[in-house]
Amino acid sequence: MRTIEWIEETNNVRMIDQRLLPARFEYLTVNNADQMARAIREMAIRGAPALGVAGAFAIALEAVSNCHLPATELVIRLNKAAQQLIAARPTAVNLAWGVNQLLSIVNQEGITVDDLVPQLISAARQLAEQDVETNLKMAKYGASLIADGDTIIHHCNTGSLAVVDWGTALGAIRFAHEQGKRIHVLVDETRPRLQGSRLTAWECEQYGIPYTIITDSMAGYFLRAGKVQKVFFGADRVAANGDVANKIGTYMLSLAAYANRVPVVCVFPFSTLDLTIKTGDEIPIEERDPGEVLNLSINGEPVAPKNAAALNPAFDITPHHLISAWVTEEGVIVPPFHENLAHYSYNRGLENK
Amino acid sequence: MRTIEWIEETNNVRMIDQRLLPARFEYLTVNNADQMARAIREMAIRGAPALGVAGAFAIALEAVSNCHLPATELVIRLNKAAQQLIAARPTAVNLAWGVNQLLSIVNQEGITVDDLVPQLISAARQLAEQDVETNLKMAKYGASLIADGDTIIHHCNTGSLAVVDWGTALGAIRFAHEQGKRIHVLVDETRPRLQGSRLTAWECEQYGIPYTIITDSMAGYFLRAGKVQKVFFGADRVAANGDVANKIGTYMLSLAAYANRVPVVCVFPFSTLDLTIKTGDEIPIEERDPGEVLNLSINGEPVAPKNAAALNPAFDITPHHLISAWVTEEGVIVPPFHENLAHYSYNRGLENK
Repeated sequence: MRTIEWIEETNNVRMIDQRLLPARFEYLTVNNADQMARAIREMAIRGAPALGVAGAFAIALEAVSNCHLPATELVIRLNKAAQQLIAARPTAVNLAWGVNQLLSIVNQEGITVDDLVPQLISAARQLAEQDVETNLKMAKYGASLIADGDTIIHHCNTGSLAVVDWGTALGAIRFAHEQGKRIHVLVDETRPRLQGSRLTAWECEQYGIPYTIITDSMAGYFLRAGKVQKVFFGADRVAANGDVANKIGTYMLSLAAYANRVPVVCVFPFSTLDLTIKTGDEIPIEERDPGEVLNLSINGEPVAPKNAAALNPAFDITPHHLISAWVTEEGVIVPPFHENLAHYSYNRGLENK
Repeated sequence: MRTIEWIEETNNVRMIDQRLLPARFEYLTVNNADQMARAIREMAIRGAPALGVAGAFAIALEAVSNCHLPATELVIRLNKAAQQLIAARPTAVNLAWGVNQLLSIVNQEGITVDDLVPQLISAARQLAEQDVETNLKMAKYGASLIADGDTIIHHCNTGSLAVVDWGTALGAIRFAHEQGKRIHVLVDETRPRLQGSRLTAWECEQYGIPYTIITDSMAGYFLRAGKVQKVFFGADRVAANGDVANKIGTYMLSLAAYANRVPVVCVFPFSTLDLTIKTGDEIPIEERDPGEVLNLSINGEPVAPKNAAALNPAFDITPHHLISAWVTEEGVIVPPFHENLAHYSYNRGLENK
């Protein structure tokens, strides 16, 4: 089961509609960049690595559905679609990364439409395959930090649903579980969109991982009570100094873990690292519809006054000093992150550029 | 408008049914201790000071509705009712305090039923009047800590609805607002029962105080961004060393304020101080129904898998070193709390006992 997949027979993309979980499991079919941008904005698909693949697929889809155009017009159209896609969610850098991987093919000198379209499809599908490999590597490295008997607080959703398969932080937990380690996950519900109680709890059930849902505000209580051995989460963008942009609430969770000497583990592929950005404060934070904070109900009753105002920043910045370890596809990296990153081929590749 | 009130004509108690706000404003009538214990458990009435008055009223109601009994039997019955009431919510010490104030009258040697019943009614009503006076004093002292232009994060509900009138932390904010200070309140929604978005937002509208609802997990984002000048909340029980038991989430909020050098102000009457308890770790934490975490819906859809497990500790402990100031009915007290408490008459009274 893949979160997002290219369907060869129909040359379009099928993905799990994450707006409907856990109530219903349904696929959504996407045929062009416009439909993909809408699916991304409405969070039918979300999770930084999954957005990278979705962005790449969207460029390929847009090429397929416009292959009747002359090459120059197609290239203009794809560059325009790329801008629209990147703007759909500004914080996760993977989306821009996936789109730009394909744009570098689009913008080759003198390429014909007949060559371009199959190259884009193939590159996008390769990105999806790479994502699965990358995630499996992260899962193995991440699992090495998990001990038998650990209770782990997990924030947001970072499982298969956030990537193509396996996942980042939840992938590591799943790998440790499959190694036979007895693990209990305290699932932060993750207000306002409840990706924890809706998606992570659902994924834990699929894998048979024991879990309990808590509100985000309860994490400190369990950390202070000494009932938690690790905190795991993913990342939407990591700055050069190691500051992490991740789902809103990650910062307060990390502060509470740090205050109680519980290790904080951040799991992400190198495509999430943005060395063009020096510190977390430069990362753009997406402001989403206040309705996401207010549209809850309990027993059919509203939970806020009718015309209440709300704010909805979707991400926050966790300063690097609160984070104990990074898990990447090349291994576990410990502080000082920027210094230690020099030993990894990803960074060496960058230096050569 | 009082949250809870003795109705002289009918000799029973009328209170605002807080389960229905903000959708509907309705009164609930309570006639005996059993009905009051249920109303307390189901949180038709809540808030530490309001629970103190509710406990006292419940003993008076139980006496009125059993005034046909012989004195010995009535005394036994009232002592039994007292136990049941105190057990209804274990964390807030005010409930036990209010009940015990009336029990000291019940357990006088040789009192007749004819004397006892009016004494209990009068004592309970006096407690309610005292609560209003006490709250107004706290509101004035608390307002002195609020500057023109402040943005204040407020957790849970501590307004009129949490007391008889005025309130503790929100009372101070309301007083400052009525002094003409321009204030903006960031209202923590306060999961799981959403007393912030349901009750505090509703109260802010009644008083015309500008407010915006945020999820509890967003407080750190706004604190780190330098957009918040104060954090205000109440207390359910304060230990001798100054540790504070308050609504779940208070600890993580205080950690985030402390990390960003934003003052944390805790407003409570002396009846919330429990000097018999040395540190916060000895305060019993109420575990409530996990259904309160899971029973949300968005557009009619469930937000967790069908048989998901959840935990629901209703309070947490904020260590005293995170708190910048106490506001009580006798004034503002700063750290070291235990030492400085010696200057206040409440403590002198205790020493004389």
